[in-house]
Amino acid sequence: MSQKYTTRQEDYSKWYNELVYRADLAEHSDVRGCMVIKPYGFAIWEKMKEILDAKFKETGHSNAYFPLFIPKSYLSKEASHVDGFAKECAVVTHYRLKNDENGGGIIVDPTAKLEEELIVRPTSETIIWNSYKNWIQSYRDLPILINQWANVVRWEMRTRLFLRTTEFLWQEGHTAHATKQEAIEEAELMLKVYAEFAEKYMSMPVIQGRKSESERFAGADDTLCIEAMMQDGKALQAGTSHFLGQNFAKAFEVKFADKEGKLEHVWATSWGVSTRLMGALIMTHSDDEGLVLPPALAPIQVVGVPIFKTEDDLSRIAEKMMELGKKLKSLGISFKFDDDDQKRPGWKFAEYEAKGVPIRLAMGPRDLENGQVELARRDLKTKETVNWENIDQYIVQLLGDIQENLYQRALNHRKENTFKVDSYEEFKSKIDAGGFFLAHWDGTSETEEKIKEETQATIRCIPFDQEAEKGVCMYSGKPSKGRVIFAKAY
Amino acid sequence: MSQKYTTRQEDYSKWYNELVYRADLAEHSDVRGCMVIKPYGFAIWEKMKEILDAKFKETGHSNAYFPLFIPKSYLSKEASHVDGFAKECAVVTHYRLKNDENGGGIIVDPTAKLEEELIVRPTSETIIWNSYKNWIQSYRDLPILINQWANVVRWEMRTRLFLRTTEFLWQEGHTAHATKQEAIEEAELMLKVYAEFAEKYMSMPVIQGRKSESERFAGADDTLCIEAMMQDGKALQAGTSHFLGQNFAKAFEVKFADKEGKLEHVWATSWGVSTRLMGALIMTHSDDEGLVLPPALAPIQVVGVPIFKTEDDLSRIAEKMMELGKKLKSLGISFKFDDDDQKRPGWKFAEYEAKGVPIRLAMGPRDLENGQVELARRDLKTKETVNWENIDQYIVQLLGDIQENLYQRALNHRKENTFKVDSYEEFKSKIDAGGFFLAHWDGTSETEEKIKEETQATIRCIPFDQEAEKGVCMYSGKPSKGRVIFAKAY
Repeated sequence: MSQKYTTRQEDYSKWYNELVYRADLAEHSDVRGCMVIKPYGFAIWEKMKEILDAKFKETGHSNAYFPLFIPKSYLSKEASHVDGFAKECAVVTHYRLKNDENGGGIIVDPTAKLEEELIVRPTSETIIWNSYKNWIQSYRDLPILINQWANVVRWEMRTRLFLRTTEFLWQEGHTAHATKQEAIEEAELMLKVYAEFAEKYMSMPVIQGRKSESERFAGADDTLCIEAMMQDGKALQAGTSHFLGQNFAKAFEVKFADKEGKLEHVWATSWGVSTRLMGALIMTHSDDEGLVLPPALAPIQVVGVPIFKTEDDLSRIAEKMMELGKKLKSLGISFKFDDDDQKRPGWKFAEYEAKGVPIRLAMGPRDLENGQVELARRDLKTKETVNWENIDQYIVQLLGDIQENLYQRALNHRKENTFKVDSYEEFKSKIDAGGFFLAHWDGTSETEEKIKEETQATIRCIPFDQEAEKGVCMYSGKPSKGRVIFAKAY
Repeated sequence: MSQKYTTRQEDYSKWYNELVYRADLAEHSDVRGCMVIKPYGFAIWEKMKEILDAKFKETGHSNAYFPLFIPKSYLSKEASHVDGFAKECAVVTHYRLKNDENGGGIIVDPTAKLEEELIVRPTSETIIWNSYKNWIQSYRDLPILINQWANVVRWEMRTRLFLRTTEFLWQEGHTAHATKQEAIEEAELMLKVYAEFAEKYMSMPVIQGRKSESERFAGADDTLCIEAMMQDGKALQAGTSHFLGQNFAKAFEVKFADKEGKLEHVWATSWGVSTRLMGALIMTHSDDEGLVLPPALAPIQVVGVPIFKTEDDLSRIAEKMMELGKKLKSLGISFKFDDDDQKRPGWKFAEYEAKGVPIRLAMGPRDLENGQVELARRDLKTKETVNWENIDQYIVQLLGDIQENLYQRALNHRKENTFKVDSYEEFKSKIDAGGFFLAHWDGTSETEEKIKEETQATIRCIPFDQEAEKGVCMYSGKPSKGRVIFAKAY
């Protein structure tokens, strides 16, 4: 690993891109804006999926699958939705290719033009509510609590691996309820599920709050979100949960008969997280040596590297390591013993460091004799010599410590980079260095827009958890009901 | 459930379509040829996925994800592949919609035309081998053993739920190897994985064999398959595993340096199963009362229905049932207690019968007093009164029996409907009634094509497991090396 990598200090954005390649997580494909998620990156995403999926099921949701294609006219049915999503999208216009009679190779068959164009789903509210229309007649059919794991396409002009790609993977929950209150509670519940996932499994502290009107999902009455701070002080929206009111029910004429037989429009929510979480995970914890993973999401939690000269040394070390591997497996811990004799230990150390494996064990013949092993922690980059006896129990405890340490480190970073500001001059002088700025805002979209134009900062959320405090808007001087979080964002 | 359903005898095809709706597995969407997989159907598919995914990982494969879109020119790179796949497919030609200035609503923006059209993947060999080109330099980079769970689109003119839909879900394995032998072994191994899955989990006996040249996958040197017999005697191809030779490596110029430093083209396989397996599962076991599920794939394995008049009865029955539910859960058995007081027991019986729940328990106050319960087996439609004591152990054993019974029943059905024929006249007189026909064939595509034209039957496979037996082709009278299986197929 003699290659010189960019550090975070030198160029955060370049560091990120290099890291995604270096840890073998993903790469750009030849298809504009689309990425290839490589096996190591996909293994992390699979862990995320598995944990989230279990949480969705625990909270009463079932998975289903709806079509990839949405008829163009569906997008137009919900007025604000079409503005948000009908712009940059992949449009299927034909359904056949043919051999060009003039020798031009394979061409689109002009006779195979679709009567109505199909849009590759940018999100599925419209196609799903078009189905719900047939599923819902009475209050007995409610609630419907469905989630879908799917790929979606939004034609992005500027893409970045995981953070913003034309095609990405996500889950989208779509629920239907008999009452407004129940739908609001559902949207709140799912935000809590996301927040708990982010904090407990990703070791990523998040701020829960509500979006301002202009940052709302197109078609929502209220958008709740979790916002995380990356190491460069920028914000990343990690998940959103929308209370959709009766907007989609009205657009698709979905009514139910209540207990008294009266027809009412159905209430809705939708909520989603995507492969963007991979970007958030990387930018929350990683360092100049590569990826740093919280143990709960690490495909390999412990790696064993033998230091050996002779075949005999290797086989004695391997025996010990395989024993440990079995014990760890029974404890639910993933272990890899890397006995590749084509690669030197130093190369392996750098490799597993780059890949963010939380604990590395290195064992040579002398360690074997002394009944010990060298243990390196990825998060702190510390090494210690530990006794082989009961090392499995030590590892269990250490993985928990690492998980917690990463969370605390990220939380401290956020605390150190969260500022109360009361003057717009102060705000402007500090915003470029990054961080969350708690500032008073007059509640208008006009002010929000002007601040965005002048500083590129946006209101990330109106946090749930804040002291009630009256004040005046830092921009307009008009009255404010409380502080909101301004930040530059991914 | 007063609705009258079509029986298999009356109209097998209609019975199938009705059953998919009746068991709430899937439905047609408004998007031509695309289906909605409903929660109950998706839960079965999820079980299939989970089991297969574990088997792929056990055999050394990792999951990854490649783009949904394939540049049009990629499809043309492998000559026979383009003939097979570039015909009926969804073509993305534009990337933006806009408001029509003349008031025509949302229209495709003519200025947003792609330079090169993108095809929604019908299968991913081309986009994947275009990536592998950059991943493979040396024999040390091999083998690559990757699987992808994805949606694919093939523009089908005549669609049927699960069996043939424009969009479907599947997994596609794509492996790269240093030697021909290793690639052949991989293709064989994965066929075995599919066959074991079909027989052990789906209780569906399959015949393993090889496709004739004309039935091969477009771009393969050899296509191995598993073929199952449906209840109407028609064949269903349940999975395929392809030895691709060096075809895609040559098309995408993928070479590796062997141990001596010599450059060689890489050897490849691909293999897949899809949501078509849902159709196979339904048509193998189900009856006129609805779905019949092998316990290994049943989302609900045991359902408990209370028979009660008073709240007090219900609560005493519920207590017993919940106790049993806990015990079953600890044994890995899924249990649902249906205490819905809006629906009568008779309605519930019909409902769970339609949904194929393997075991139904019904308990009334008298059963409670006598320490017993009525147990109904879905596969045999038998009822018995069993002691409540140790019922959990009885259920464990019974689920195993049902799994085995379904397999044996399907196997007997296949045996009874498999015929050796030596004369084409006999073949023609019998083929319409369904069944597998073991017949001699001269090995030519011409004969195969003529038989298909005249009878609609195709060669399903050249089975691996057969006695070496020389003979003459039933059609041409020319020499044959052995019998192949002819059948009409889904």
